Amino acid sequence: MIVIMRSHAPEEQIQAVMDRVVELGFKPHRSSGEERTIIGIIGDERSLQETMFEIMDGVERVVRVLKPFKLSSRDFHPEDTVIPINGCRIGAEKVIVIAGPCSVESRDQIFEAAEVFKECGGHILRAGAFKPRTSPYSFRGLGEKGLCLLAEVKSTFGLAIVTEVMAPEQVPMVAGVADILQIGARNMQNYNLLEAVGRTDRPVLLKRGMMSTMEELLMSAEYIMSSGNQQVMLCERGIRTFETYTRNTLDVSAVPVLKELTHLPVLVDPSHASGKAAWINPLSRAAVASGADGLLVEMHPHPEVALSDGGQQIAPLAFREMMADLRRVAEAVGRTL
Amino acid sequence: MIVIMRSHAPEEQIQAVMDRVVELGFKPHRSSGEERTIIGIIGDERSLQETMFEIMDGVERVVRVLKPFKLSSRDFHPEDTVIPINGCRIGAEKVIVIAGPCSVESRDQIFEAAEVFKECGGHILRAGAFKPRTSPYSFRGLGEKGLCLLAEVKSTFGLAIVTEVMAPEQVPMVAGVADILQIGARNMQNYNLLEAVGRTDRPVLLKRGMMSTMEELLMSAEYIMSSGNQQVMLCERGIRTFETYTRNTLDVSAVPVLKELTHLPVLVDPSHASGKAAWINPLSRAAVASGADGLLVEMHPHPEVALSDGGQQIAPLAFREMMADLRRVAEAVGRTL
Amino acid sequence: MIVIMRSHAPEEQIQAVMDRVVELGFKPHRSSGEERTIIGIIGDERSLQETMFEIMDGVERVVRVLKPFKLSSRDFHPEDTVIPINGCRIGAEKVIVIAGPCSVESRDQIFEAAEVFKECGGHILRAGAFKPRTSPYSFRGLGEKGLCLLAEVKSTFGLAIVTEVMAPEQVPMVAGVADILQIGARNMQNYNLLEAVGRTDRPVLLKRGMMSTMEELLMSAEYIMSSGNQQVMLCERGIRTFETYTRNTLDVSAVPVLKELTHLPVLVDPSHASGKAAWINPLSRAAVASGADGLLVEMHPHPEVALSDGGQQIAPLAFREMMADLRRVAEAVGRTL
Amino acid sequence: MIVIMRSHAPEEQIQAVMDRVVELGFKPHRSSGEERTIIGIIGDERSLQETMFEIMDGVERVVRVLKPFKLSSRDFHPEDTVIPINGCRIGAEKVIVIAGPCSVESRDQIFEAAEVFKECGGHILRAGAFKPRTSPYSFRGLGEKGLCLLAEVKSTFGLAIVTEVMAPEQVPMVAGVADILQIGARNMQNYNLLEAVGRTDRPVLLKRGMMSTMEELLMSAEYIMSSGNQQVMLCERGIRTFETYTRNTLDVSAVPVLKELTHLPVLVDPSHASGKAAWINPLSRAAVASGADGLLVEMHPHPEVALSDGGQQIAPLAFREMMADLRRVAEAVGRTL
Repeated sequence: MIVIMRSHAPEEQIQAVMDRVVELGFKPHRSSGEERTIIGIIGDERSLQETMFEIMDGVERVVRVLKPFKLSSRDFHPEDTVIPINGCRIGAEKVIVIAGPCSVESRDQIFEAAEVFKECGGHILRAGAFKPRTSPYSFRGLGEKGLCLLAEVKSTFGLAIVTEVMAPEQVPMVAGVADILQIGARNMQNYNLLEAVGRTDRPVLLKRGMMSTMEELLMSAEYIMSSGNQQVMLCERGIRTFETYTRNTLDVSAVPVLKELTHLPVLVDPSHASGKAAWINPLSRAAVASGADGLLVEMHPHPEVALSDGGQQIAPLAFREMMADLRRVAEAVGRTL
Repeated sequence: MIVIMRSHAPEEQIQAVMDRVVELGFKPHRSSGEERTIIGIIGDERSLQETMFEIMDGVERVVRVLKPFKLSSRDFHPEDTVIPINGCRIGAEKVIVIAGPCSVESRDQIFEAAEVFKECGGHILRAGAFKPRTSPYSFRGLGEKGLCLLAEVKSTFGLAIVTEVMAPEQVPMVAGVADILQIGARNMQNYNLLEAVGRTDRPVLLKRGMMSTMEELLMSAEYIMSSGNQQVMLCERGIRTFETYTRNTLDVSAVPVLKELTHLPVLVDPSHASGKAAWINPLSRAAVASGADGLLVEMHPHPEVALSDGGQQIAPLAFREMMADLRRVAEAVGRTL
Repeated sequence: MIVIMRSHAPEEQIQAVMDRVVELGFKPHRSSGEERTIIGIIGDERSLQETMFEIMDGVERVVRVLKPFKLSSRDFHPEDTVIPINGCRIGAEKVIVIAGPCSVESRDQIFEAAEVFKECGGHILRAGAFKPRTSPYSFRGLGEKGLCLLAEVKSTFGLAIVTEVMAPEQVPMVAGVADILQIGARNMQNYNLLEAVGRTDRPVLLKRGMMSTMEELLMSAEYIMSSGNQQVMLCERGIRTFETYTRNTLDVSAVPVLKELTHLPVLVDPSHASGKAAWINPLSRAAVASGADGLLVEMHPHPEVALSDGGQQIAPLAFREMMADLRRVAEAVGRTL
Repeated sequence: MIVIMRSHAPEEQIQAVMDRVVELGFKPHRSSGEERTIIGIIGDERSLQETMFEIMDGVERVVRVLKPFKLSSRDFHPEDTVIPINGCRIGAEKVIVIAGPCSVESRDQIFEAAEVFKECGGHILRAGAFKPRTSPYSFRGLGEKGLCLLAEVKSTFGLAIVTEVMAPEQVPMVAGVADILQIGARNMQNYNLLEAVGRTDRPVLLKRGMMSTMEELLMSAEYIMSSGNQQVMLCERGIRTFETYTRNTLDVSAVPVLKELTHLPVLVDPSHASGKAAWINPLSRAAVASGADGLLVEMHPHPEVALSDGGQQIAPLAFREMMADLRRVAEAVGRTL
């Protein structure tokens, strides 16, 4: 950590900062420039807060030297983490497409979706039983009944299941069916929930909050990992900006940046990012081209009657075409799909 | 709800939308302009989703006519909601200042804070026992021990207590001490938690998410209210923008806009908005001048040794001066403090 | 345009809006729902402003039906616009890579850059003579001298030139050398400049402002086109968000969305979007995969000594590798490069 | 400037950075922590760019120590700048309210506006002759004819005039009438224009771009000041966020932050910030309470027939009431109005 003093800060203010550094068990390192004095703090800064010094008289700014995340950092774990699920290896050379309807709506619907997906070569099905919705008056999922249907689908089709868990007390129940526990964007900083899934042995798919920086995403991964669960995959799903044509703004740069910062697999959800079925294919191609390890796509057998998010679910025919397109793009960047 | 068709959409696409409207139990109303046809949908649109129509062929855009919130809306409840707490009436003519340290850190610290606050004429003390922190490695509050200290403070000083609850299973325990349950910004869309506090009889202080719209804030209030608890107060605490000098950007316009949209009391937290103690006073003055019903201020007896957010906690002396300043501003806008 | 009245707006307020519509030469169309009355306005709304009605008593909201852009809209001009430059056809099947240094710095530098680029099969060279810089104390380009060097490069290597023009009075001088006039992001809404380039016969490369919506970008294209110049190409170059790891956030969704809204060619600038040379290749691949018609890449023979934006300029070797990568991605999406 | 090396960067990379520092005429100062080496650069860093080092092997991050602005900085000019105009002293104890219609529309309209404003005790009238509009099809001001009307108003009523200048070639003509030259938000980074007004002796009212940081605003002031004109006043007018109820988000924190960073007067424009007449009064009160030196308010004698921005122009009666409200708030914060 580096403390930058105000220009012409008097000696006693500089000394007070130096003393505080020592008091906290660190070693200060003073460097005086032409206009300002800078104090470096030697030691593991992760236990320090910028505000401890920002508040002192004469301090202009405090700058961190180390990244605040550790277990998720590539500095500490240089090799890619690969998560094996149902014959897939997420984070390895093959790009994994996870797809399925936004919500489980009925036995017929989820079976039809699973059948289509299986035919397209899918291995991991996504579908929500518990749905976080902005409005309490919207369809909020079938809940436990939805989970039971997912269990049936799983045994019938041999597909692995990704589904969202919304509260700590739901974790055991959801983990009884799900192969991957999904943490939704709105819960990215629900720390009690992060710790609850961190205490299971189920891989976790952690979605970036619509308002969250990449660093905060990694800090949330850190919560799960420091609770004991190292099998975390990250998912970029669009962030909120001033642009209104799209539901969110897909931050495709997050793919190469996260791949540099962390060893965890990085997925992209083009459905929530765009909010419109017609844009899912080009955004998926962009994600694969930029180096994503996988996709999380909303696909519904009959989007026009979907109970939630109909507009952003791709229909089976378009999904099949997209898979063919993505295969070519994956090969163009030296991967398979 | 209004469905705007693409220019030159063929008659069969227009008819398909009209048919779907009828199928869903609503009445369509067609209007043909020079370039486009528009279909109005007559009936209570709150059970409809835009995507149900957006996905149909020939549809360009769908526009809601009604606001999606109801119980919190001033249209449905024109008079201001007033929440009585410990002799204060939040939402009435007197502006309420809630203050206290970011976290309960020790018996000495919280007692000293309470004493200072009581002397300044305070009635409702804030302090965190359970702290949501971006990093799992930061101080995360004293937890239950912190709650016990708050219970002691409450009986010793006769102050009402606001403290945060982070998970549904904590609600009974926290509600055993707290007079007001706080939902933090990161949990604004933690719907299981909203419903859990909605089933209590404790007033709820709901903070706006750092990247949430006012409409989403009201929808979250709607979750609490539709669960049975009408005593909700809203708190603007700064939103996330590209500006970096301040920790967040205080959206002071939220005060007059929310006062127009809803009957619920509107508070402002200038501490999280600014991130710097020196700016708390001017931002508090702005909040009161714009019509806020109250403030939520971080005040620490010794900010320089605070275990969390030291930089944005105001010291007792500055707090006293601010109270005097705010009293003058409140009177200038026809209120008291 | 649609005027949505407040719930229970009295009849005389509804009548006043109807009268105003007639007064302005339009035809009102009234539709009364269960809670609200809606008034449709029949006629070409482009000459109307929302505020004309928003200000009237009893009006809650005004919604546009038509898009505000016309000449740039695909509704009015369904076929893709193709702009021929130096044997390239921008907007056609082949993806065009425009590259070159941020600034012309010296005769040696620009000649070396041109030579490398030519060897890589390039046809259109970019380089700035007039540089908009945030700080007046930074290097601001060689100005006229830079233009002369570009003229020399042009005749020596047979490359077409893209360079920025910053003020209306510079247009004739810059158009004397440039084959394509670039409007920088900061000048996207410099309307006098847009009209000045709109009166030339030079194709214009219009960069999206870092704070601008796609609709505003199209409105700026509309300024150029309504001044007489139809040869406009659009360039997404990253928008400003709260994320700080990248210089800007590349809005890759802008590619498919703009391709749907407009017939104009859509390019992507991955250099300004990322701010870091290492991320230019993956973002370029994403852009091509999403359907971009071209790229605008900063490439410098020796980035480490560049006078401006060194960190985001790609070196020749990496550029060559990227061209090979992009060729494969272009083919995977049915195009060439 | 401080260069932070990657963890375990090899000695030759560290040495290369040290050598480059020396080569550029600065003095390096090395400090080795437990995980990283940091190199401080001693000397006036304003001529350095972060990218010069960011691009070097082994460098993780580069941090500026000094603020990039100088002439506008309070460090270099501790006393408040006061700008005298027509008997007002902008930046002194009295809060200055500048008001008038968005555009000059006709002789009658501007004379009526001036008369009302004069009666309310106004000294400085605002009104646009050249109007930057998002759409080329909107009313764009009366141009030179508008300027002539402003000259007439000026001599008739003895009011000083603020009006916008949009292009360098307009500067002499506009400066012939205007007492204060306004640079609009869209032109905040139109550097040729900034330098053109910087070469006049007219005070300049510089509006913050809708997605510009405070630092960029100060850098734009720096362009004007380094061209010779020290009479610059800054104006916060709302920034762009994801919130849609308001036209922009008033960044009221900019008032105390800018007052700390710079000696220049700070004004607030509540009209563009809110986009709605009803919110101008509460936002103006907030601005004055937070310490603004003045306001720039849109006031129209008949907003319902305004040719531009009707919805955000306040009517004379409401303006008078607001002036009374603001006077009380100004006094509450120790100022007059």
